[in-house]
Amino acid sequence: MSELRRDPIVGYWTIVSAERGWRPMEYRPKKALDQRECPFCEGKESMTTSEVFALRKPGSLPDGPGWEVRSILSKMPILSNTAGGQGSDAVGIYDTRDGVGQHEIIVETPRHQHDLDEFSHEAIEKVLKAYAERIRELSDDRRFEYALLFKNHGLVSGAATDVIRHSRSQLLAMPIIPKRAKEQLALTKGYYERRERCVVCDVLKQESLDGTRVVAQNGSFFAYCPFASRSPFEIWLLPKKHSADFAKTEGTAFSDLAWILKQCLVKLRDLLDDPPYNLILHTAPFRHKKRAVYWKTIEEDYHWYWQIMPRLTLNAGFEWGTGIHINPTPPEEAAALLRETRMPDKQAPGEE
Amino acid sequence: MSELRRDPIVGYWTIVSAERGWRPMEYRPKKALDQRECPFCEGKESMTTSEVFALRKPGSLPDGPGWEVRSILSKMPILSNTAGGQGSDAVGIYDTRDGVGQHEIIVETPRHQHDLDEFSHEAIEKVLKAYAERIRELSDDRRFEYALLFKNHGLVSGAATDVIRHSRSQLLAMPIIPKRAKEQLALTKGYYERRERCVVCDVLKQESLDGTRVVAQNGSFFAYCPFASRSPFEIWLLPKKHSADFAKTEGTAFSDLAWILKQCLVKLRDLLDDPPYNLILHTAPFRHKKRAVYWKTIEEDYHWYWQIMPRLTLNAGFEWGTGIHINPTPPEEAAALLRETRMPDKQAPGEE
Repeated sequence: MSELRRDPIVGYWTIVSAERGWRPMEYRPKKALDQRECPFCEGKESMTTSEVFALRKPGSLPDGPGWEVRSILSKMPILSNTAGGQGSDAVGIYDTRDGVGQHEIIVETPRHQHDLDEFSHEAIEKVLKAYAERIRELSDDRRFEYALLFKNHGLVSGAATDVIRHSRSQLLAMPIIPKRAKEQLALTKGYYERRERCVVCDVLKQESLDGTRVVAQNGSFFAYCPFASRSPFEIWLLPKKHSADFAKTEGTAFSDLAWILKQCLVKLRDLLDDPPYNLILHTAPFRHKKRAVYWKTIEEDYHWYWQIMPRLTLNAGFEWGTGIHINPTPPEEAAALLRETRMPDKQAPGEE
Repeated sequence: MSELRRDPIVGYWTIVSAERGWRPMEYRPKKALDQRECPFCEGKESMTTSEVFALRKPGSLPDGPGWEVRSILSKMPILSNTAGGQGSDAVGIYDTRDGVGQHEIIVETPRHQHDLDEFSHEAIEKVLKAYAERIRELSDDRRFEYALLFKNHGLVSGAATDVIRHSRSQLLAMPIIPKRAKEQLALTKGYYERRERCVVCDVLKQESLDGTRVVAQNGSFFAYCPFASRSPFEIWLLPKKHSADFAKTEGTAFSDLAWILKQCLVKLRDLLDDPPYNLILHTAPFRHKKRAVYWKTIEEDYHWYWQIMPRLTLNAGFEWGTGIHINPTPPEEAAALLRETRMPDKQAPGEE
């Protein structure tokens, strides 16, 4: 089981493997897994934990073939779903917290080496609906305060090297609201208190009028390169209609989101030659706890969005020392290049 | 000239190249430079800007050979030292700030491919004294509030690929106190207000008694793996005697610091096979501005230190989404392995 530890000097939390940790040689690069060894392919269901969710063809059985999207518990969980609550503890001057959580792997396709941007719109829509359903279910668990949904495409990720080219995302239900989310909650709430408007709605209006940072849009969604993009070619996807919860998305908005997400991912692949990227959902924390300080106006002040971060630069001493990122490509230039990159008219062979 | 831009939704600052930015193909990996093309070698002084500082042999001339440590202005500055003050501006809902600063490259040796841990103690001591002297000089410039000193060893750094294997650090004087430093200032000040003690002194005392995370120590310095290490095998080097300013280091403390820094770097190289790392100095901000909120008790509440971050994992979606890092090697195990790794008795051939 892992442990959350708080640094008393700078204030951040770290998740530390409290069981036997990685020895130096485990940090060496790993060989990519052959498709035959991939536990996420259809027919290999016995290699994973039991499914907690699946979109299945009629008549197919749990933990067998016949699925389109399938969610399972991670075998190497960042936070693990063992008994126990949210125990805090002190080690002298230090604070710790139990690493309780639920870490799911959402396998997005039964097919190996078939990336999200290569899916049909319908298949992406099913994946998005699966994300929403999993978040809704976890939000009922009173141990958890926040769900983080993220995808690491084509890169060495966090602790584990991504050696399996099988499209999947990770969903982590957490016992705390992480620092990054807290900072945003405080800022959007402060803006709302001063102006009685949502800051994201105001950004959306300004970006729409300005136009220089727009990447794409449709009836329900707006994609743009943020003014202070931390990564070159970073894109945010916002719902045009104000909403605090991604999991409450309904109706045609799913199809509009599938459309614009595919468009953005295809543009990035074409322009940057299939760059590694992170896709991250920023949505409101779970609210069953009624922590009044955040929740009073959260339906009005918080606005969910997807963040796509191409990973073209590495953080170095400057970023670690300051928390400030350096972006060598102004978002206005990035957006212009992304706008010029057109979706191919025909689907590539092998595409669904 | 670059521009500081603030994100209105999450609150971070980003440095954006406001002139013509990098096009997609400029993010492709670059070939390492041959020694003949290295601008930092002795005899190549005409390839750099004029030196702002050098430790020179008697009789040698500025911008010629005969130096031991040499500081020059970066040709690709993160923030540039042009005229202008600290102009803030608004672009609709957005905040910007002039990217004024001074970005120096401190070349630590005239020799190519000769890494800091391979230097003699005396040579490391000269480098440390050069750091302190440069920070002291920049602290008199009223445009600047903070100096960040950092070293990127063996890795692709921030925006520019590190294609030159010539030992050097970077010193950046900045017009703002960066987020990371502000957070620490607020926390250490709060701790001091409650307890009238420095939190770093308290950590030092607890780590010294506990012993499980100690890496090395001598008369003036203490090296340990922090309780909430964000990077596996991370090490912090603290002065045992309370001090807010690295630049005020005096006397034998420089030699003790050179000794322990070399020891830590040699241990990391031996244990982890010359890992990429960042070395970052955390020292108090410049105080000529007398911003009373920070400065009232800063001599008592702030404690400077060096941070050594081996770069063995990459940040992925989880870290970007939460601000929480995952460390697969508990610092107790890392410290035990580092303690067991002994300095070689003899110096390697070619060492000074």
